Amino acid sequence: INTWDYNKITINRWVVAFIVGVLTGSIAAFIDFCVEKGSELKYESIKKSVEDCVNDDCMYYPILIWIGYNTVCVLIAAVLVAFVEPCAAGSGIPQIKCYLNGVKVPRVVRIKTLVAKVVGVIGAVVGGLAVGKEGPMIHSGAVVAAGVSQGRSTSIGIDFKIFDYFRTDQEKRDFVSGGAAAGVAAAFGAPVGGMLFSLEEGASFWNQGLTWRIFFSAIISTFTLNVWRSYIKGTPWQLSSPGLINFGRFDEMSYQIWEIGIFALMGCIGGLFGALFIVINQKLTLYRGRYMYGRVVQVCEVVGVAIITAVAGYISIYVNNDCKPVTENLDELQVQFFCKDGHDSATTNLFFDTPESSVRRLFHEQPGSFEAVTLACYTILYFFLALWTYGLSVPSGLFIPSLLIGAGWGRLIGIGFQAFPSMQADPGKYALIGAAAQLGGIVRMTVSLTVIIMEATGNISLGFCIMITLICAKWMGDFVGSRLGCEHGIYDMHIHLASVPLVDWEPHVLTATLPARKVMSHPVTVFRTKEVVWRIVDKLKKEIHNGFPVVDDYDPDNPQPTGPDHETFGKFRGLILRHQLIVLLKRKVWLQNPDYERLEQTLTLADFRDNYPRYPPIHHIAISPIEGEYTVNLEPFMNKAPYTVSESASFPRIFRLFRGLGLRHLVVINGDSEVLGMVTRKDLARYRVKSKDGKLKMKELLMSHGMVKS
Amino acid sequence: INTWDYNKITINRWVVAFIVGVLTGSIAAFIDFCVEKGSELKYESIKKSVEDCVNDDCMYYPILIWIGYNTVCVLIAAVLVAFVEPCAAGSGIPQIKCYLNGVKVPRVVRIKTLVAKVVGVIGAVVGGLAVGKEGPMIHSGAVVAAGVSQGRSTSIGIDFKIFDYFRTDQEKRDFVSGGAAAGVAAAFGAPVGGMLFSLEEGASFWNQGLTWRIFFSAIISTFTLNVWRSYIKGTPWQLSSPGLINFGRFDEMSYQIWEIGIFALMGCIGGLFGALFIVINQKLTLYRGRYMYGRVVQVCEVVGVAIITAVAGYISIYVNNDCKPVTENLDELQVQFFCKDGHDSATTNLFFDTPESSVRRLFHEQPGSFEAVTLACYTILYFFLALWTYGLSVPSGLFIPSLLIGAGWGRLIGIGFQAFPSMQADPGKYALIGAAAQLGGIVRMTVSLTVIIMEATGNISLGFCIMITLICAKWMGDFVGSRLGCEHGIYDMHIHLASVPLVDWEPHVLTATLPARKVMSHPVTVFRTKEVVWRIVDKLKKEIHNGFPVVDDYDPDNPQPTGPDHETFGKFRGLILRHQLIVLLKRKVWLQNPDYERLEQTLTLADFRDNYPRYPPIHHIAISPIEGEYTVNLEPFMNKAPYTVSESASFPRIFRLFRGLGLRHLVVINGDSEVLGMVTRKDLARYRVKSKDGKLKMKELLMSHGMVKS
Repeated sequence: INTWDYNKITINRWVVAFIVGVLTGSIAAFIDFCVEKGSELKYESIKKSVEDCVNDDCMYYPILIWIGYNTVCVLIAAVLVAFVEPCAAGSGIPQIKCYLNGVKVPRVVRIKTLVAKVVGVIGAVVGGLAVGKEGPMIHSGAVVAAGVSQGRSTSIGIDFKIFDYFRTDQEKRDFVSGGAAAGVAAAFGAPVGGMLFSLEEGASFWNQGLTWRIFFSAIISTFTLNVWRSYIKGTPWQLSSPGLINFGRFDEMSYQIWEIGIFALMGCIGGLFGALFIVINQKLTLYRGRYMYGRVVQVCEVVGVAIITAVAGYISIYVNNDCKPVTENLDELQVQFFCKDGHDSATTNLFFDTPESSVRRLFHEQPGSFEAVTLACYTILYFFLALWTYGLSVPSGLFIPSLLIGAGWGRLIGIGFQAFPSMQADPGKYALIGAAAQLGGIVRMTVSLTVIIMEATGNISLGFCIMITLICAKWMGDFVGSRLGCEHGIYDMHIHLASVPLVDWEPHVLTATLPARKVMSHPVTVFRTKEVVWRIVDKLKKEIHNGFPVVDDYDPDNPQPTGPDHETFGKFRGLILRHQLIVLLKRKVWLQNPDYERLEQTLTLADFRDNYPRYPPIHHIAISPIEGEYTVNLEPFMNKAPYTVSESASFPRIFRLFRGLGLRHLVVINGDSEVLGMVTRKDLARYRVKSKDGKLKMKELLMSHGMVKS
Repeated sequence: INTWDYNKITINRWVVAFIVGVLTGSIAAFIDFCVEKGSELKYESIKKSVEDCVNDDCMYYPILIWIGYNTVCVLIAAVLVAFVEPCAAGSGIPQIKCYLNGVKVPRVVRIKTLVAKVVGVIGAVVGGLAVGKEGPMIHSGAVVAAGVSQGRSTSIGIDFKIFDYFRTDQEKRDFVSGGAAAGVAAAFGAPVGGMLFSLEEGASFWNQGLTWRIFFSAIISTFTLNVWRSYIKGTPWQLSSPGLINFGRFDEMSYQIWEIGIFALMGCIGGLFGALFIVINQKLTLYRGRYMYGRVVQVCEVVGVAIITAVAGYISIYVNNDCKPVTENLDELQVQFFCKDGHDSATTNLFFDTPESSVRRLFHEQPGSFEAVTLACYTILYFFLALWTYGLSVPSGLFIPSLLIGAGWGRLIGIGFQAFPSMQADPGKYALIGAAAQLGGIVRMTVSLTVIIMEATGNISLGFCIMITLICAKWMGDFVGSRLGCEHGIYDMHIHLASVPLVDWEPHVLTATLPARKVMSHPVTVFRTKEVVWRIVDKLKKEIHNGFPVVDDYDPDNPQPTGPDHETFGKFRGLILRHQLIVLLKRKVWLQNPDYERLEQTLTLADFRDNYPRYPPIHHIAISPIEGEYTVNLEPFMNKAPYTVSESASFPRIFRLFRGLGLRHLVVINGDSEVLGMVTRKDLARYRVKSKDGKLKMKELLMSHGMVKS
């Protein structure tokens, strides 16, 4: 290898990071533009019809327009998700978490998913559902990164023949980390938070170069979005809109020492509501999975929720006839609705705008802008709408709804404190803390969430309060959640429902004494160094594993138990992967092939990489009966020195190998280098710890071979 | 283990993190207070003598006061370092980097070091040396964390008998990460940057709980310092001074798209100057190590530099007679010096203040406050002073001098651009970019430095420019540095000079084909499962290693070569550590001991932990000749399933084990589980890659058994 080749790869990594940042930022700008325009169109037309009808007494008419608009938009989103790409549903964060954790989730980073996601999220937000566009940005960024880094799209059949040295799991995952970070950065204007999100969810160990590139993607993405938005606003290069959601400036905010106690308490409330949210949503998801799996049913449910959302908004405006005189404020969409002439409905500020604007209003409007009753109704209503909406077959982010709910009750608390004028309570500050608490209680992220909120507020000295709030929210949420039967954050809850073997952060202390021989899967399928073709084909068809030990001294027809507990599977020589075997079979690399010498020498890394990541399944490989009797020599192709552990290695030791090195399979051997079993991610995820009667108990889960290959 | 014990340990981890944050923040506040008061006293008295002398024609008198003041302060610092604790010299960042990387550096986290560091840095800064107080804060935070987490100080003989379950290398290192982060957070008001610093330098793989606690320490430390400083300023709870160095507000700053090119160019200049700085400093350090190792010589050099600094400042003020009319600005110390009545010397703004204030001046003073010539002289002078000062026997930070140099030439560039009025160039902005470039060129940190500067400026949209600048600075610095013979940042350069086996971030591509059998150390000292006492004592005395394989079927008197290249050392059974052997010998746990059964059963983890980290050296263990013939059974105490690799495992694979899992020793075995050799950190650090004539070459270094135990 010469200096130039080496530098080229290094430079190309940066080029990919740059392109990923630019594209992600541009997608965010596109979504933002469409949502803004769509919402404007919708609210303007309703406003117009209200103004026409307020005198003509035809107030049933605006609600029909409202419902019609919502239905059409949401229908597009729902049909795209249900019929084109089910993977695009929800925020995509659970899937990206799995992907970064090292679990392969099928179809999650395809270009079709991206299109469905982008168009779908525009439909869902414009359709007035209780969803945000921020979560889906993370997924979108990840897809962009996966596509760009491979230099081709198999779905649309384009191959630019560039970046082909990035076509491995490891490299692709690294780039996807950068894409996810770019997505977060664009969503919240938080490049550091985005980088931390990727690290928190994925990167197994800190790698300076990789982190630096992830951060680069993130900062480029924020910059690109900023440029686009300044341009759209007509003030190019002013660069004042770094993220999709902007919390506005919190410069003037200060706090007293005793307020920290209140913030902690609010954190606890957020944790409590968050745990409730998760538990109810879990029940709902289970119910949906059991009874509502038809595509048409799913689309109908989405449309139903859209109609209910519109009706609920309309009724709220009607009931809470909270009117105030018309002001000169041009920022607001002022609609008269049921108010007397010269007055506008204050409730419209909440129901009659994009959720992002509502959040900003709750943070920044003057004290007295909202009546307590309006706010209370709104918060409760939105809580249940968001609950119902998350899990529907539409792309939907959960950040904004959580922030809205939290800002709602936070501001209520602030209004309560205004009864004591000496406190000089600013409702906006309490709205911010409430929003942080509620979001923390629902998603249970730690470092990255703190930094995201710090960056979105642009105020470092508030960081301390936000952190205290989030710590309390997480603790309270975990505590209440474990009592109610779901101790995880909402994303992890959905991951667990899908039976994905996600590996935790740390091994639990209780597992300290669990030896490898208890953890491993057993018996295990092995291949001999010189293996018969039909046996390979047969085993590959029967097994879903991706890695197989290669051994000597093993007779598959007559396995020899050697100990009281365990049979062994021959002397360990190496590890071979499913896709390697498939390529060997496809290329007919058997010893009986007259061309064998040439084949063995010319088969390069590129041949194995060529079909990445979509290797043909084994039943697409045609093997004639005569070929079935031939022999494949696995020795030149296998990994001769994979990671192994001894049978007495403890669970934490194995755990750290998987987590720290991103392993997928680990061979367990005895003191004589004989294969005893295999450990996969599924085996690690099998043990969960429960607290019962003050004692910790370990529980072994039975896991289905769900949607995921280990 | 019951729930309560488990929770208690978890809670105590947070308690320690909290205490570490509070103490680190308080130490920072203490240093800051003393430096401020000390400098005030010094400059006020000089100012007074100038005012007295300007008419009496005795201008030699102020310079004598100046020199006297500097000499006394610096003498205290130098004597503390040279005679009390040499470990307190410099910024301490190289030592902390090593510590976090997993290398044991003796005496670096002792309380004596802390005292020398704190008092020393006050002396050095008040003494007018070209040093900052920020770097030493990182070291101080680390010492605080090491002390608090162990619940005792062996140096001053206090043991609170708490936190004794934290007395292991791993736990202690985790807390030290938090302490270092708290130090950075206090120094720059950058909690996120501090956390990233710790992660970048140390934590082997991302652990959510640990990162969350590190961040907690950092944010508590910023908060504490903020409270103290607000209190000292007389405005308690206003909380506007989060860090020791405050860059001031950069709210109004905006930039044009083409300016990014200029920033990149400035980054390159910073990289160039940085590389020069490092190379000259390297030569100087080598010279010092060779000719100036006497303690008295070291103290004299420090005093010499202090005097020269004072004289240089005085001469500069005399030569650059840059006068301006007296203003009403009370923030500034206005001194007449050699100006005519009613005028003040502008040069005093730079030479006659703490370096932190000078940095802020260069960032924020109005255009036209400094003359180009003054600035140029100042920058060049400060460059050489800083160069000479870093490496002296005083505690000294390099961040502030680097920022000052960069801000100097950056502002010069800005002044140059003012010749084109259409550019509306703000010299302060260029000063900031120059400062970032220079600092990046010297320390070559990446993510953490970007975030630290972003937090210190409090402006997210400047983040993009700063990152571009730092990327260019690092690339240019690495490039020019490798041509000049030192491709590392200043800290790594000092680490390499000390021959510390620091493990890099990534294995180089060239090492991909290097097998374990080439990397490992060989032959290796092994012990048999039942080993004779005198052989243990003998080997421990002769060897400096800390881990030894335990084997069967090995005859030390007659080692058996089995292959053409390698002898083997018996069948591998486990690994035993030096300190375990020492405890076993000290407790007389041999089979011939009549009490053996009881001893073996009662020897608990606590007994091994009791002396941590200062186990008695082997020659302090008294073994009688009769005892020497006894046998120790190592089997119950050894680690039965340590990490091992096969002889054909590649270098990158071994590398990732060390880096990802923080290993210190790895046993290399063959296919029959026989020990072939050991890999330690030193073996990993032995291979360096050089680029020569467009080809990359690998170089094997010979490393001395320097200051460090592997």
